[in-house]
Amino acid sequence: MPQRYVYNFGGGKADGRGEMKDILGGKGANLAEMTNLGVPVPAGFTISTRVCTYYMEHDSTFPDGLVEEVDAAIAKVGSEMRREFGGSVSPLLLSVRSGARVSMPGMMDSVLNIGMNDTTAASIVAKTGTERFVYDSYRRLIQMYSDVVMDLPIGEFNALLDERKKEKGVWHDTDLTAEDLKDLAGKFKEKVKKLSGKDFPDDPHEQLWGAIRAVFDSWNIPRAIAYRKLNDIPHDWGTAVNVQAMVFGNMGEGSATGVAFTRDPATGEKVFYGEWLSNAQGEDVVSGVRTPQPINLAQKKEDEGDSLEEAMPEIYAELDAIRQMLELHYTDTQDLEFTIQAGKLWMLQTRTGKRTAEAAIRIAVEMEAEGLIDRKTAILRVDPDQLEQQLHQKLDPNAEFEALTKGLPASPGAAVGRVVFTAEDAVEWSEDSDEEKHRTVLVREETSPEDIDGMNASQGFLTARGGMTSHAAVVARGMGKCCVAGAGHIKIDYASRTFSVKGTTIKEGDWLTLDGSTGEVILGQMPTVDPELSGNFATLMEWADEFRQLGVRTNADTPEDAARARSFGAEGIGLCRTEHMFFGEGRIKYIRAMIMAADEDERREALEKLLPFQREDFEGILEVMEGRPVTIRLLDPPLHEFIPATDKEIEGLAAELGKDADEMKERAAALREVNPMLGHRGCRLGITYPEVYEMQARAIFEAAKALAERGIDARPEVMIPLVGEPKELSILRKLVEKVAAEVLGDDTDAVPYHIGTMIEIPRAAIVADEIAEHADFFSFGTNDLTQMTYGFSRDDASSFLKDYLKRGILRKDPFQSLDKRGVGALVQMAVDNGRLAKPDLHMGICGEHGGDPESIYFCHRVGLDYVSCSPYRVPVARLAAAHAVLRARIRGIM
Amino acid sequence: MPQRYVYNFGGGKADGRGEMKDILGGKGANLAEMTNLGVPVPAGFTISTRVCTYYMEHDSTFPDGLVEEVDAAIAKVGSEMRREFGGSVSPLLLSVRSGARVSMPGMMDSVLNIGMNDTTAASIVAKTGTERFVYDSYRRLIQMYSDVVMDLPIGEFNALLDERKKEKGVWHDTDLTAEDLKDLAGKFKEKVKKLSGKDFPDDPHEQLWGAIRAVFDSWNIPRAIAYRKLNDIPHDWGTAVNVQAMVFGNMGEGSATGVAFTRDPATGEKVFYGEWLSNAQGEDVVSGVRTPQPINLAQKKEDEGDSLEEAMPEIYAELDAIRQMLELHYTDTQDLEFTIQAGKLWMLQTRTGKRTAEAAIRIAVEMEAEGLIDRKTAILRVDPDQLEQQLHQKLDPNAEFEALTKGLPASPGAAVGRVVFTAEDAVEWSEDSDEEKHRTVLVREETSPEDIDGMNASQGFLTARGGMTSHAAVVARGMGKCCVAGAGHIKIDYASRTFSVKGTTIKEGDWLTLDGSTGEVILGQMPTVDPELSGNFATLMEWADEFRQLGVRTNADTPEDAARARSFGAEGIGLCRTEHMFFGEGRIKYIRAMIMAADEDERREALEKLLPFQREDFEGILEVMEGRPVTIRLLDPPLHEFIPATDKEIEGLAAELGKDADEMKERAAALREVNPMLGHRGCRLGITYPEVYEMQARAIFEAAKALAERGIDARPEVMIPLVGEPKELSILRKLVEKVAAEVLGDDTDAVPYHIGTMIEIPRAAIVADEIAEHADFFSFGTNDLTQMTYGFSRDDASSFLKDYLKRGILRKDPFQSLDKRGVGALVQMAVDNGRLAKPDLHMGICGEHGGDPESIYFCHRVGLDYVSCSPYRVPVARLAAAHAVLRARIRGIM
Repeated sequence: MPQRYVYNFGGGKADGRGEMKDILGGKGANLAEMTNLGVPVPAGFTISTRVCTYYMEHDSTFPDGLVEEVDAAIAKVGSEMRREFGGSVSPLLLSVRSGARVSMPGMMDSVLNIGMNDTTAASIVAKTGTERFVYDSYRRLIQMYSDVVMDLPIGEFNALLDERKKEKGVWHDTDLTAEDLKDLAGKFKEKVKKLSGKDFPDDPHEQLWGAIRAVFDSWNIPRAIAYRKLNDIPHDWGTAVNVQAMVFGNMGEGSATGVAFTRDPATGEKVFYGEWLSNAQGEDVVSGVRTPQPINLAQKKEDEGDSLEEAMPEIYAELDAIRQMLELHYTDTQDLEFTIQAGKLWMLQTRTGKRTAEAAIRIAVEMEAEGLIDRKTAILRVDPDQLEQQLHQKLDPNAEFEALTKGLPASPGAAVGRVVFTAEDAVEWSEDSDEEKHRTVLVREETSPEDIDGMNASQGFLTARGGMTSHAAVVARGMGKCCVAGAGHIKIDYASRTFSVKGTTIKEGDWLTLDGSTGEVILGQMPTVDPELSGNFATLMEWADEFRQLGVRTNADTPEDAARARSFGAEGIGLCRTEHMFFGEGRIKYIRAMIMAADEDERREALEKLLPFQREDFEGILEVMEGRPVTIRLLDPPLHEFIPATDKEIEGLAAELGKDADEMKERAAALREVNPMLGHRGCRLGITYPEVYEMQARAIFEAAKALAERGIDARPEVMIPLVGEPKELSILRKLVEKVAAEVLGDDTDAVPYHIGTMIEIPRAAIVADEIAEHADFFSFGTNDLTQMTYGFSRDDASSFLKDYLKRGILRKDPFQSLDKRGVGALVQMAVDNGRLAKPDLHMGICGEHGGDPESIYFCHRVGLDYVSCSPYRVPVARLAAAHAVLRARIRGIM
Repeated sequence: MPQRYVYNFGGGKADGRGEMKDILGGKGANLAEMTNLGVPVPAGFTISTRVCTYYMEHDSTFPDGLVEEVDAAIAKVGSEMRREFGGSVSPLLLSVRSGARVSMPGMMDSVLNIGMNDTTAASIVAKTGTERFVYDSYRRLIQMYSDVVMDLPIGEFNALLDERKKEKGVWHDTDLTAEDLKDLAGKFKEKVKKLSGKDFPDDPHEQLWGAIRAVFDSWNIPRAIAYRKLNDIPHDWGTAVNVQAMVFGNMGEGSATGVAFTRDPATGEKVFYGEWLSNAQGEDVVSGVRTPQPINLAQKKEDEGDSLEEAMPEIYAELDAIRQMLELHYTDTQDLEFTIQAGKLWMLQTRTGKRTAEAAIRIAVEMEAEGLIDRKTAILRVDPDQLEQQLHQKLDPNAEFEALTKGLPASPGAAVGRVVFTAEDAVEWSEDSDEEKHRTVLVREETSPEDIDGMNASQGFLTARGGMTSHAAVVARGMGKCCVAGAGHIKIDYASRTFSVKGTTIKEGDWLTLDGSTGEVILGQMPTVDPELSGNFATLMEWADEFRQLGVRTNADTPEDAARARSFGAEGIGLCRTEHMFFGEGRIKYIRAMIMAADEDERREALEKLLPFQREDFEGILEVMEGRPVTIRLLDPPLHEFIPATDKEIEGLAAELGKDADEMKERAAALREVNPMLGHRGCRLGITYPEVYEMQARAIFEAAKALAERGIDARPEVMIPLVGEPKELSILRKLVEKVAAEVLGDDTDAVPYHIGTMIEIPRAAIVADEIAEHADFFSFGTNDLTQMTYGFSRDDASSFLKDYLKRGILRKDPFQSLDKRGVGALVQMAVDNGRLAKPDLHMGICGEHGGDPESIYFCHRVGLDYVSCSPYRVPVARLAAAHAVLRARIRGIM
């Protein structure tokens, strides 16, 4: 049987089904599914993603037989809609839309009103008498087609439109007459001829195939590639093409179009939520060109126009019924697109609705309570990465301010940054060497898919136009960023890089604060506060804890960080860096004296002075983490990091220490290294200067002992960094044990302690079985392990890494998401060999990957005992750890 | 059956055998073997190495039953020698010597004349009437025992001896009378009491056990540890103790002692070669205190004393017969120690004789011709590491000079270096930041085992005393270094750090040249020349080539190096570094212009100018290597290596290039990296600046094409460095192929080329299967692979690596000998996965390990196709590759 390329739907039955997303794309599969469910969907067909793959692999040609299949499908659509494509009596108009496996909002091009030409237009006018609408559609076709298919400059067409509006003294497109539009269609065609040297294709089939090609071609335009990169969508999936009978929301006052969510996508509240525009086509809502009206009374605010519920109560009731049915069917919040054509409701799309983290949590918890989904599904419904936005970036409720203006609260949270006016600037500023410029707020009339990179680079977005479902709002919620949309009072002047609102002018670079939960726009930097972690959030976290197997610890160097992490649910400290403590007031002097010491005696003298500080540090942290393990890493960075850099500073230090300045300069120079990353650091310092580690171990055990005497359960774990050779660990373990015995004496039960090592050098992973013999635990330092496994210095790699990501040489930044194939293979090797040598070896990860969900899934899979991450990532990690278990089960079943 | 600890030998039969070296040590096993062969060996017994292991593991105690076994063994020895240990009528005297599995000359302590006390001395005098000899032996016992067992300062005893000689106005010890010596013995005992607070032990058993303990203890003295480290002898082998009836070479004129080799250890000539001293004990020969006489007429020179052949013709004949029998039995050159006591010959030791590389080659080739050994054995008889001394460091025969003086040609070759007078200085100077100081010649009265590290650090040794078998000579031959020994005319003044010879005074730091083949000592730096590579050397190399499976290539960047390597047998170039070429006259300017270019166009302009230079370079090398593969690595180091370092130089460069100096300083600063080793280099440059690799590829193919047109068979292999991700290689492979197609056009057969990559990043080894898909060959860059696998920067690691080696944390410097456990595991992984993906993948190594025999064995074992090393190591590699095959076969059989 030959491969099938085309799948029809319409009239209550479809060739495809909802599960066939791989072949039909998300949109196509859902159109088929809705059709099968009896939802009114305009008839159409889907050209499968296989054709896209074929097209890309075969030099932009189509497989044999496709044309015939499409012809047959068109005939079927025509018969269903009782129209004929290219026919002169009842011409069928078609839309052509892309539709990949996963939703890519606004990323792909579409062409509407395919099939229009002078003949069919006249015929429709003759048949329906809606001349204005017909020529509006006609000129739209020419405009879109010229832009998307023929790649002509859209501005030239808009200029003609604007010119005509000026001539007529009108503001809105809708104020133009049928004659104006008909005339414009003619002018557009002339413009096409002039710009391209070719006639605009009058043949409906030529139009159709041009549009199909354009959809396939648009799969590889830069903004689509950028979106896929940002969202981890493989480039080789390809898109399907959905060809569907046109229905019109702009057919006069009985027509309308709208977008709706089955629940509030911002708060998660179970209310029907949406926007509509009468006498409009879909893109008018999404693009934010006109600010739409609320869908129902529940949402309607004072100064807003009629809701759909008021304007068309019967249609609204039908839509609400469909909404309930679809949510029940899909058991998830849906994002719906509909069009009302001359009093008849058509559903154009349903898909899983994007939502804020707050909404995601509420919806998941409430749907579980409603019995719609089970607890596991509820957990899986919340994206761990999104959670972090719940944890910070809320405006301090006590902050006093007068808002400049107010827009729509399109995506919650707070954003504080400097004003920029273009996406390019947002990107550029984020890479500026001046860190003061990194935080920006992007201010735009409206955003568009081209702005994706800039939106990713800025803290939040403020738009003058557009509603809750505008591009800016949708993207912001997806990214977990704050957005205030449709702030109609602001006037942007791109040329002078300013915007003004009520007499105040705000310049590029001025500080601005957005409150995405209220829509307020505030001049200056407002304080933000930690959010409450109760209610639905706490419920979800409890559920996650029920399922997860990985422990979640935190990386914290101070009692404050430790306390915060504990409030987020950290079960211990996985990495406490001791060297940060050395930089404190009154300490750095002694560490410098230690480094500059002429001999061991002098060194010990300086260390003696550091000891009380370290002991105090450890006592603080161990106390906060009472009853939970605290992994303390002994001194790791090379010594020159503690030494002043300039000659003058060294002279000052010499004077302070009563030493010879020249001698000290020499010593400082000797400490400098060509590749400090691979130099004299970590346990190598412990081997050559055992007295340093001895002091640190003493501080740890003395702190723990003092706490134990106060009845506090201190659980220190001493971690030796940078081990590459088992003997390094065996020597240093003995050293630490010796100190422990000296401090704790016979009462070893008072302070139960462990000694382990970081696995952060490739060789350590390889000889992990031998290292395990001397270790109670392994902690994977995947930051350094990534640096050495790739041969990438984090400090230097930016010069080529960006290029590598842009060109797809690397799919992800390996410092953000663990490289499972390379670095992961070493982790796996170390886990397997380590456990083989010592079955009860305790293992965790303390690199920054410990807070990255994808990396956490990997950690679960290879059998680590815990992950450790920054305090704010702790809830992310808890949820991701639960996902890891549930996903593994799903894979096990499937 | 209880474990046996003690093995007797004597009277023609022994409990042990020659193969039992693990248990009996080398000396003990050979004593047993000689005894069984009927060679006259003083009776004795060996305490097994097991006792040493037990002693070390049990806090310096002995296993149960040992005392009884030793008592029984002593009784047996006594009965064999017809004497009684501790007896008053015919007292038995014993020697106690160490003896590890492999020979450790001079490394371990020994004690002679055990059993002497006032009573036994008187008894022996009474019985033999040799009073002088008896008291000489007595005072020697006290002296040695005080030093070795009681750890008292030897100088105090020597002072007493010197004092007595001064009193008596005599020069030699032998001029002291029996009375003097008896008196001295008494004084020595008083001194012992004074220094230690204890009486010297008169009890023979107490003496014996003290000596046995001292031997075991001496296994762990620093110089023994240093020797084992230098010679890769495991620390846990332990030593055996050989207790043997004393025989005396100092019993008057009918007595003598000597050392001999069955063939000349310097040249390998098949002549009986040795030295003797009449009326002396063995250590007198070895220590070089007296300059010994030749053993036979064949060796005797004009001004030398009587040979043994002349002095004792019958004994000489017996010795010569034993020599022939032992060489036939062991089928290898033996190093013999003998003593003649009152006209009777006793053999004290036989062991495999150390030899120079020249001798090793000649002996191996001649013994094969004699039918004594087969070809495989002959190959295995030559240590590959030793070969290099055959290849350089010969004095230019055309050099004109007047020698300062002449000593014994103790170890051949030439040494050119600055004079130092202590081993410590040699070590210190070799580590000096001033490279001018690195090459030293160590000048000593005589050397001793404490000097090992210093000898290793210097180019060669000049001694004022000692013969061909003196410590300096033996060590020099073992190390493959040049030595002139016993240069009696030089007068050393350690205090002023000078030596004088015939009125000339040479100071510390002066340049000195030694010719170890003639014994000449020359002031200044003499030119050296390459040796001839014919005769036995060529024969051995041919044999090696018959057996080896690994190809041997060379690392060469110039036609000269390539030609030299070819003369040494290189079968291709495994690594031609292109960047060295950039530093040449007239080139560096363009590479700098390229780096400083504002954009791609400017960069291409500069590259255009570099192209002819590179083409010329490649043409030269490809021509020299006609018909053999030449692997050319594209640009590898980070760009800042080519940029001047100081602001002033940059200003000069800016002026030259007509650029803004500040801009250039900024660019230069931007290029500087925190960890250049892990930075923007290798293929990462090729990705970001493809035009650079494009130019290099063009130069390669244009050069090859030009040669092909001249009928010369050029075989370029283009190597992409620093690949860590398969896509890097696939992108750059396409780039190189594109250039090849452009240059070569349709005539692709004219220049057969390959494209491959270095495996030098841990990740590359892990994903080798994916990389193999885009590679024709892999070349393991084990220098960088070692840096990244260990996390050791070669530029910085010296600060701790020396410590690591000294403390045994690392057994070997991983940059010298491949770390098989860690780095090797990655190599193995890459070989296996690479071959799995592409069975015909060609694989080699081009790190410096390619010239290290132990690493070469590993390369053979993991299945590489070739090794590549520096030109001088090519013969080493050829021989080592043959060893790899033969050793594998031996392991297969055993």
